[in-house]
Amino acid sequence: MQDSIRVGIAGLGTVGSGVAKILLSNAHLINSRCNRKIELTAVSSRSKSKQRGFPLKKIHWEENLINLARRDDIDIFVELIGGEGNPAKEAIEVALNHGKHVVTANKALLAKHGHQLAKLAESKGLSLKFEAAVAGGIPAIKTLNESLAGNKINRLMGVMNGTCNYILTRMENANLSYEKVFKQAKDLGYVEADPTLDVGGIDAGHKLAILSSIAFGTEIDFDSVYLQGIESITIQDIYQAKELGYRIKLLGVSQKTDNGLEQRMQPCLVPANSAIGQLENAMNMVIYEGDNSGPITLSGAGAGEGPTASSVLSDIIDLARDNKVPTFGKPVTELVKAIPTSRPAPGAYYVRTKLKDSPGVLAKMATALGDHGISIDRMRQTQHEDVAAPVVIVTHKTLPETLSNALTAVAKTGVILEDPVVIRIEDIQ
Amino acid sequence: MQDSIRVGIAGLGTVGSGVAKILLSNAHLINSRCNRKIELTAVSSRSKSKQRGFPLKKIHWEENLINLARRDDIDIFVELIGGEGNPAKEAIEVALNHGKHVVTANKALLAKHGHQLAKLAESKGLSLKFEAAVAGGIPAIKTLNESLAGNKINRLMGVMNGTCNYILTRMENANLSYEKVFKQAKDLGYVEADPTLDVGGIDAGHKLAILSSIAFGTEIDFDSVYLQGIESITIQDIYQAKELGYRIKLLGVSQKTDNGLEQRMQPCLVPANSAIGQLENAMNMVIYEGDNSGPITLSGAGAGEGPTASSVLSDIIDLARDNKVPTFGKPVTELVKAIPTSRPAPGAYYVRTKLKDSPGVLAKMATALGDHGISIDRMRQTQHEDVAAPVVIVTHKTLPETLSNALTAVAKTGVILEDPVVIRIEDIQ
Repeated sequence: MQDSIRVGIAGLGTVGSGVAKILLSNAHLINSRCNRKIELTAVSSRSKSKQRGFPLKKIHWEENLINLARRDDIDIFVELIGGEGNPAKEAIEVALNHGKHVVTANKALLAKHGHQLAKLAESKGLSLKFEAAVAGGIPAIKTLNESLAGNKINRLMGVMNGTCNYILTRMENANLSYEKVFKQAKDLGYVEADPTLDVGGIDAGHKLAILSSIAFGTEIDFDSVYLQGIESITIQDIYQAKELGYRIKLLGVSQKTDNGLEQRMQPCLVPANSAIGQLENAMNMVIYEGDNSGPITLSGAGAGEGPTASSVLSDIIDLARDNKVPTFGKPVTELVKAIPTSRPAPGAYYVRTKLKDSPGVLAKMATALGDHGISIDRMRQTQHEDVAAPVVIVTHKTLPETLSNALTAVAKTGVILEDPVVIRIEDIQ
Repeated sequence: MQDSIRVGIAGLGTVGSGVAKILLSNAHLINSRCNRKIELTAVSSRSKSKQRGFPLKKIHWEENLINLARRDDIDIFVELIGGEGNPAKEAIEVALNHGKHVVTANKALLAKHGHQLAKLAESKGLSLKFEAAVAGGIPAIKTLNESLAGNKINRLMGVMNGTCNYILTRMENANLSYEKVFKQAKDLGYVEADPTLDVGGIDAGHKLAILSSIAFGTEIDFDSVYLQGIESITIQDIYQAKELGYRIKLLGVSQKTDNGLEQRMQPCLVPANSAIGQLENAMNMVIYEGDNSGPITLSGAGAGEGPTASSVLSDIIDLARDNKVPTFGKPVTELVKAIPTSRPAPGAYYVRTKLKDSPGVLAKMATALGDHGISIDRMRQTQHEDVAAPVVIVTHKTLPETLSNALTAVAKTGVILEDPVVIRIEDIQ
């Protein structure tokens, strides 16, 4: 056996404690798989006295995580305190500058500073690893960075925020409003302290930006991710979508188009019988479309102590086995600046609105849409044409700006009673 | 950049040609991801004159694959000729004895000689890699061997033979008999030269044995895989299963039980709305249940030029990046002999038979079953009790031997007209 490899963990919350527990409970198995002992030598967290389900006795305690990052007796610094800036960022820099590999689950930090940190790590010949930052226990990073490394990636997609998927499936299954389910999720501890990180799509957007960098060889560009949250999704839209054979998901899509890199995280209608359509509760799923592999679909728990800790362990074990891959798929010096697309690819759209209670309003709306280049695939009105019932339209593929202009023209005809709800329909299997 | 790494491919059939084409078409991308050039220096195959869609001009041609395996100008020997014995086995041994890493897609060879070949490879400090041997383009090996290395695996499951899944889903969707669909599959070139490899479950059994070794740290033990093919599945059973909310899949299950290692590859009823239940056509799926990760599900194309070549590339790229993992999850010297279980875990069962056209036959059957410890969950008879219509029974969990004894007792009562069809029901989500 080689010398043991020594780990320091900053942050003993759910995930950090989970990692420590696995290192203790599965020690024999892990050491044998690595042909090397992995030792947890030092930790740092807010409260030393908190009960965490594992013994701290033989582990050095550091009050200050910066001191942990530069300890001589650690080889791997595991950052699990979170936050897009300091002290996490500073601690990682200190660790790299002191010759430690870094493992983190911090997607916010990576989305903002990942490129700079990767540059620092690679300049020192060190690894910066983050399997746990995207999609919990699912091997989203390794599959893209290693298994599919022989492929050009045509498109990547995913449901990457368990809280949003929980809210959307729960609304449908329990027939409850967004507000009611949001409150339940909050009470269950599913929602981040700043809820817009989850329901605003920001957290999932961070993950999408990380995957895009690896898939397309571009520097992380979170700022150009088109973001739309799930806050305005109503139970009515969920049921209308269901009637049409769709479910609504907070879906991330990233692809290289002729106009540049398209990255968007937004509620979408997806076919109810597709794998993503059937994803329930807090599960996550990613789909990679490689030019040779075809679509590869991965799913599993997107969060939680065990799954996230399992992914942190995967990174630690890679390091114990002396395995290295470029942080973002290629040496960081070869990544190119992303050129964000000026316009997303054409898509079909779901449009819901309410029409005035007078004869001929449907025809007026359809005509106005047609005049502005929108062709209608399906139209549904649950009640008689002349009653102010919701009307739902599914368009053929069009550019979002074309649709937006057309809807402005419809509004000018004076037939609609409320602002249309517009949701993209994503073409997946 | 490092020195280039040099590849020799033995076998330029579909997959071998696919690998060569990708090495040429995606060369720039792959070299940049490896920070190293991957060169295809030499090949060997049956016919030099055959058109393969890529230029052979700058590549050395070897008539004899053993000569290819010992060439000084290759670092990686890629074996894609297949067959569980020589010449594939000899060629791999020669390659390892001459200091070459080996990449293969040959599950039959691995199931039989994998342990011995791994021993040779590891004794020489070389890698024997086989991502393409299991589940085509899906990263089944890497996920288990690396991503889940921090987990005890509780159970692994999978649909790993695309031909069988194609046949079973096509029977249902086109309402055709096994024989008719088998012939179609054969005409489409989906069936191996020896069809029992596919429809007899042998090929899938090979794959299951390989995964079991990695998951449970045991020497490969294909001989103790319980094998049952799909040849006797009728369209009637497919529809009866559907009515009960199930679909029939050739499902592999492997788990450690109190009685030892249980490995079985057999047709099973699985819930129609489960991920495996919804797997269509030639797709493959594996599910790993880690003690921390929870269930991780992977799916994609189980065969075909692009997907399989993508997995071969994944192995080659790992080697180009100098990344190494133990062949079967642990150093081969630490693998223990598998102790096959003496009896599979209890399961629910589907039983279909035909009863005599006389009063009280159902009651007689139910009584005989009950007397022998079989408790009935559901019973269906499509027509009136006294007509010789098929009767379908779903049992509660029981041991297969208990059920078998009970059915013998039922037969002795003289109420049944044909031998019962018995299919296991697998408890998955």
